[in-house]
Amino acid sequence: MAIENHPAVRRIIRLALEEDLGPKDVTTDAVVDSTWKGEAILLAKERLVLAGLPVFKQVFLEISHDVCFEDYFNDGDLVEEGERVCLLQGPLSALLGAERTALNFLQRMSGIATLTRHYVENVGYRKVRILDTRKTAPGLRRLDKYSVSMGGGYNHRFGLYDGVLIKDNHIAAAGSITEAVKRAKARVPHTLKIEVEVEDIAGIQEAVKAGADVILLDNMSTAEIKKAVKLVEGRVMLEASGGIQLDRVREIAATGVNFISIGALTHSAKAADFSLEVMTRKSSN
Amino acid sequence: MAIENHPAVRRIIRLALEEDLGPKDVTTDAVVDSTWKGEAILLAKERLVLAGLPVFKQVFLEISHDVCFEDYFNDGDLVEEGERVCLLQGPLSALLGAERTALNFLQRMSGIATLTRHYVENVGYRKVRILDTRKTAPGLRRLDKYSVSMGGGYNHRFGLYDGVLIKDNHIAAAGSITEAVKRAKARVPHTLKIEVEVEDIAGIQEAVKAGADVILLDNMSTAEIKKAVKLVEGRVMLEASGGIQLDRVREIAATGVNFISIGALTHSAKAADFSLEVMTRKSSN
Amino acid sequence: MAIENHPAVRRIIRLALEEDLGPKDVTTDAVVDSTWKGEAILLAKERLVLAGLPVFKQVFLEISHDVCFEDYFNDGDLVEEGERVCLLQGPLSALLGAERTALNFLQRMSGIATLTRHYVENVGYRKVRILDTRKTAPGLRRLDKYSVSMGGGYNHRFGLYDGVLIKDNHIAAAGSITEAVKRAKARVPHTLKIEVEVEDIAGIQEAVKAGADVILLDNMSTAEIKKAVKLVEGRVMLEASGGIQLDRVREIAATGVNFISIGALTHSAKAADFSLEVMTRKSSN
Amino acid sequence: MAIENHPAVRRIIRLALEEDLGPKDVTTDAVVDSTWKGEAILLAKERLVLAGLPVFKQVFLEISHDVCFEDYFNDGDLVEEGERVCLLQGPLSALLGAERTALNFLQRMSGIATLTRHYVENVGYRKVRILDTRKTAPGLRRLDKYSVSMGGGYNHRFGLYDGVLIKDNHIAAAGSITEAVKRAKARVPHTLKIEVEVEDIAGIQEAVKAGADVILLDNMSTAEIKKAVKLVEGRVMLEASGGIQLDRVREIAATGVNFISIGALTHSAKAADFSLEVMTRKSSN
Amino acid sequence: MAIENHPAVRRIIRLALEEDLGPKDVTTDAVVDSTWKGEAILLAKERLVLAGLPVFKQVFLEISHDVCFEDYFNDGDLVEEGERVCLLQGPLSALLGAERTALNFLQRMSGIATLTRHYVENVGYRKVRILDTRKTAPGLRRLDKYSVSMGGGYNHRFGLYDGVLIKDNHIAAAGSITEAVKRAKARVPHTLKIEVEVEDIAGIQEAVKAGADVILLDNMSTAEIKKAVKLVEGRVMLEASGGIQLDRVREIAATGVNFISIGALTHSAKAADFSLEVMTRKSSN
Amino acid sequence: MAIENHPAVRRIIRLALEEDLGPKDVTTDAVVDSTWKGEAILLAKERLVLAGLPVFKQVFLEISHDVCFEDYFNDGDLVEEGERVCLLQGPLSALLGAERTALNFLQRMSGIATLTRHYVENVGYRKVRILDTRKTAPGLRRLDKYSVSMGGGYNHRFGLYDGVLIKDNHIAAAGSITEAVKRAKARVPHTLKIEVEVEDIAGIQEAVKAGADVILLDNMSTAEIKKAVKLVEGRVMLEASGGIQLDRVREIAATGVNFISIGALTHSAKAADFSLEVMTRKSSN
Repeated sequence: MAIENHPAVRRIIRLALEEDLGPKDVTTDAVVDSTWKGEAILLAKERLVLAGLPVFKQVFLEISHDVCFEDYFNDGDLVEEGERVCLLQGPLSALLGAERTALNFLQRMSGIATLTRHYVENVGYRKVRILDTRKTAPGLRRLDKYSVSMGGGYNHRFGLYDGVLIKDNHIAAAGSITEAVKRAKARVPHTLKIEVEVEDIAGIQEAVKAGADVILLDNMSTAEIKKAVKLVEGRVMLEASGGIQLDRVREIAATGVNFISIGALTHSAKAADFSLEVMTRKSSN
Repeated sequence: MAIENHPAVRRIIRLALEEDLGPKDVTTDAVVDSTWKGEAILLAKERLVLAGLPVFKQVFLEISHDVCFEDYFNDGDLVEEGERVCLLQGPLSALLGAERTALNFLQRMSGIATLTRHYVENVGYRKVRILDTRKTAPGLRRLDKYSVSMGGGYNHRFGLYDGVLIKDNHIAAAGSITEAVKRAKARVPHTLKIEVEVEDIAGIQEAVKAGADVILLDNMSTAEIKKAVKLVEGRVMLEASGGIQLDRVREIAATGVNFISIGALTHSAKAADFSLEVMTRKSSN
Repeated sequence: MAIENHPAVRRIIRLALEEDLGPKDVTTDAVVDSTWKGEAILLAKERLVLAGLPVFKQVFLEISHDVCFEDYFNDGDLVEEGERVCLLQGPLSALLGAERTALNFLQRMSGIATLTRHYVENVGYRKVRILDTRKTAPGLRRLDKYSVSMGGGYNHRFGLYDGVLIKDNHIAAAGSITEAVKRAKARVPHTLKIEVEVEDIAGIQEAVKAGADVILLDNMSTAEIKKAVKLVEGRVMLEASGGIQLDRVREIAATGVNFISIGALTHSAKAADFSLEVMTRKSSN
Repeated sequence: MAIENHPAVRRIIRLALEEDLGPKDVTTDAVVDSTWKGEAILLAKERLVLAGLPVFKQVFLEISHDVCFEDYFNDGDLVEEGERVCLLQGPLSALLGAERTALNFLQRMSGIATLTRHYVENVGYRKVRILDTRKTAPGLRRLDKYSVSMGGGYNHRFGLYDGVLIKDNHIAAAGSITEAVKRAKARVPHTLKIEVEVEDIAGIQEAVKAGADVILLDNMSTAEIKKAVKLVEGRVMLEASGGIQLDRVREIAATGVNFISIGALTHSAKAADFSLEVMTRKSSN
Repeated sequence: MAIENHPAVRRIIRLALEEDLGPKDVTTDAVVDSTWKGEAILLAKERLVLAGLPVFKQVFLEISHDVCFEDYFNDGDLVEEGERVCLLQGPLSALLGAERTALNFLQRMSGIATLTRHYVENVGYRKVRILDTRKTAPGLRRLDKYSVSMGGGYNHRFGLYDGVLIKDNHIAAAGSITEAVKRAKARVPHTLKIEVEVEDIAGIQEAVKAGADVILLDNMSTAEIKKAVKLVEGRVMLEASGGIQLDRVREIAATGVNFISIGALTHSAKAADFSLEVMTRKSSN
Repeated sequence: MAIENHPAVRRIIRLALEEDLGPKDVTTDAVVDSTWKGEAILLAKERLVLAGLPVFKQVFLEISHDVCFEDYFNDGDLVEEGERVCLLQGPLSALLGAERTALNFLQRMSGIATLTRHYVENVGYRKVRILDTRKTAPGLRRLDKYSVSMGGGYNHRFGLYDGVLIKDNHIAAAGSITEAVKRAKARVPHTLKIEVEVEDIAGIQEAVKAGADVILLDNMSTAEIKKAVKLVEGRVMLEASGGIQLDRVREIAATGVNFISIGALTHSAKAADFSLEVMTRKSSN
């Protein structure tokens, strides 16, 4: 299912448009005749990984079915600074009215994809998956995670419902890793793996014994992670997590963990830089 | 009206909760008894300007009316690394189920407020307003702009409806600054000022003559901005804009412009770092 | 952006349709075969200013994409009694099912436009703007204000967010006009003008001195308004308001105020009279 | 079920509030401290029938749970000019922020109730019901019809679903009154009566013979209505309809019809006049 | 109005799709290329009355406008085991993603229609209407009742609003049948008939005298029902109700009652059995 | 998180209430004074497993905060015919207005729980999980699956997003089980297990080799299932599925499969039988 057709994505597009348009675009309404047409070129103003082009386009379509597009790139593509990404044609008032909202989606999404790509490239090892987290902007989970995948990363669970992750608080509440895993195994759908967050070697041993499928190594040093990899010998999958910066990712990848999850991909990516150059055409369509 | 009571804010809180909870928090549901209570401490893990605490709290209340809070700080306060921000008490399953969603709001909002404060402090001049833009995360306009004000910044228009901003595309469409301003004056509500974006000195002169109330100086050098200030002699207000970095803001403030608008405040702020330490209490309430 | 495409307008159209249709149009469903086609003529049954034709049409489209239209007039046009406004063709069940809802929009909107036109024509002076207020039917603000503009009137602020209007209660709360204006200037977006409601000459003087951009003269006599115009000498704009009837509008306009705002335009306009004459065609499409 | 608790009423209240508040009440936010309290008196500024007080109150509660009320009248009561209707106490910002929206509901609803009362009083005959129609403001059907009942009128069907009304278009489509009634009887739920709109005596005879329960006499003269009453001799109920003015209602009532339906009650009632006098209290709560 | 275009039906379709899709169809997304096309045959796996085909189709259209259909049957048709009902062509990912949701609608609806048909056929008497009740699945009232009509049954009232049904609790509250009917007649819209639920012969006599239009005979034996029919002699209509099984329906029909209402039609129908056979076509469209 | 607080559950409760209430409960509104109080006893009219009591109660609370409850049983309890389940007290109009909607939830949910319990009891073996499927009523997925768990069953995946299930159509599209599993492993979140639907022994062997975590045995005979269990020797989990009737479930459980999934639990359960006995109290509260 195309990302822009997803009902939840349509809803957030409408929400974003309405918060920008309010009762109306007073400037365009006053300055631009409703019959004028326009053309616009979407340009990349820096090197970036494209993500969100179909969403960008849907924003315009949401306010006018008369906008047409010619794409020069697809989501996931690397675009060089100065390259043309898309040509738009349609009513000038629609181009101007939807511009900022459309760019807000595209810039955030491509920013996430571009940052993800940096992590993925830094890893160098094909076997390690760079994962996102649930640290996404409120309401934008689906799009943030899509952007990570466009940048070459992988999705961790989408929410609290499509993966079991037993964290320190759950363990404390249950009394022990063993008890927490036992409870989870007894109750969660059989379609879900059991992942356990641990903080030390003892925790790893207990989690493996309890039957965890995946272990999340929280805030461990590279040395500790290495020890963990050696210890589990592939019996369970390992995920390294906790404030991992771009410069440390290769080193961690080299330890042999299966996954490295990075909250910053979605909570702290810079917006990618684009511009939309609009030209008016007052001649008939 | 308190920010957390705003209908649009309530809506985005619910949207965010639902995208995280889905059908249910499978881990907590399996591991934690529904009768267990808990206590949680919200800690600042870096020096930050607090923004979003009422929203953070509302997320918990949205899934359980039995969560209580004790606040140690208010929005707008500067919080030092390691300080306790808020104490929460309530059903353990509610504390765990709402934690990530609540933190996602708080971290984004405090990140924006903290970055804004850096700009405001760098200015040093009281008379210059640091402004936000419409480059906000889709669906989060209201909260992003609130966060800017908590950081000491000021809000530019909220959308296309509460301020007239005649941009290059409008001018090109109308044929000239003069014509565009004339059209705007003839049609927009009298409650709105007319702001015009210009790119050079000739543009400023035309805009002043046309009767603009505010002029936006787009991507001008500091020298050009100085010239502009001198030229208008206070007859109109001036806004400097266009990729202004933290290190250049004081220099621009010194030119005497009235406003400096910064897209990065809302499109590229890093999330502020918080943690929520949860403790289980199995004794009766 | 065309009025009928505005997301909030679409929402109220759907709301109105659903409240009329409920589970189904029991009469049409029973009496009319789903394959029958029909044609309908929309007639003006009195002299009126047309407003809401695109909304009227959208109501039909909302329940069937197979309805086609031929327009003989546009919004804003003066239509004489008995003239044909629009021809509709489509499934008979759609024509009958949407008829009342579509007419309810059109009659209210054209009623407002027609009443506005009476005020505008009574003024005679081109320079005075007849303004609407926020006294609109709940949920119909956008359409009510659009209708005023179709009648030749101008829009005051759309809500509490796109214009500052310091009223008696604000002044009482702040302690004085001076203090209230000072607070507003210190905090509201620079894109908004400051309007102050005053009740006497002293208030005008204080408001001008405090730096108000616009002064609302509340319930003043024509003589007082004249005095106010003379006093301010064009330094600020003046709005006359407060129960102004059609017969008094020319006299007030002659005082030289800039704006006259009329709550009755939207809260007490009579519905304009239209009829929809439907003909059945049972022949194949 | 109390009118203000009806889900559809809550929805329109929220819609109305949001269209007025937008992102925020910029004036109150700037001028009024969030800690200030206030008191407000709702006054009737003309003689009126009260309708909508619970809705008025709910508007305030929707933005703050800290507003309290003391009622001096109930919906349906006749209130004299100058009388106090309700006392409100609560946060000043809530009183000011919800004021206009709350009044917009109350003024429309009381305007409808007051106009209805005039019709009811003019009738003088207890046995004739003054009925409303479906000519209501879009989205406000439930409230408009409630207001009619507060004024002493009765509700006709709420929509196309809770009553069968075979109109001229249905008859034309079906071929005859007889055929249309036959079709309706064969298909509609047995809980609904069959009402048929007729334009002449022949129509009445056919409708009675076909088994109609109620006959709507469309745009007939008083003489024709009299003839109709005589003709049917109480075998079916009769409804007079079609542009009936206040001055003609008694005459029509005297003919012996059962119902007189009046579109103007809801499509052309003037807003009733109220004012809300607000006082600030800065002392602690 | 076509059932699939009804706004409430569209809403429940979207709700159902979203609860099944969540953030995405992980399996199809991973296994199926987005460019692959497919074809699918909808087969009846048992003898059934078809209901819901337009809804089934709309589910697919909701996620992709590129799905096409060829229908071999219409709603209301009897379909034999093994017959092809519909051919679908379109993007494979859309066919697989919407399949279960679409079938859930179709199976429930056809199950209800099929069960209804059994009752209708068992009656044998043309004059007795088999009625549904309000015992429908929450949120599916409109579709459940539509399905009953496709099976040859008739709809009782759709909700609490389109029919008066005075039940035992109302009678107890009012004090007597007479008083309850009197109250209803005095207040409910004249478009609605008055139906009264009674438990014995005395109740029938009182209800007839009070002026009830319809009497619901609750849980009466066949003998009692016969007595009731004789007693009322056609002066009012009679509805038999209360746990009536398929094997008793003919006997009750033979008593001469007008209606037999059956809660089981909608609260306990078994899903009808269909299968959707999907074939992949990887060649270009 | 309590089931009745789930945002999606609240939404379906409101939807169900609105479809029953429409503009109003005409009968109760006419017959019952708004000040009258009532008491009601919820009785089980057959032996059943209770599910949905908190939802039942929430329906009443949604229309009046003044309804109070005393519970005699909890969800999951076995209730004997004739036992009292809950006592309700509150405004009579609320008790009558919400009754049918509340019962519709409770009867469906308890019907599912009761049927599930029959399957679970028939199994006799503790180690086999009785599973639900995605064959739920549209919009009621969350509640249907909750009811299964109250009956002692387990939940399969909630939707297409929280479990990978590679079906025949996916396999056909991918070309082979091996290829399909490979694709899934390469792309889906690591938190999800891979389940593959197979139809014969060869399929099982291929699936195990490809690395499936779970294998769904579709429509196999008991003998084939036995063979499958023997073949996999616990290396993967096995799920038996496909039209399994109550009388065959013990036999299948005895084969040693891990799961038996039953569509009928949610698509064909009979409503459980309850009654609500209401008593009026006209004395003051």
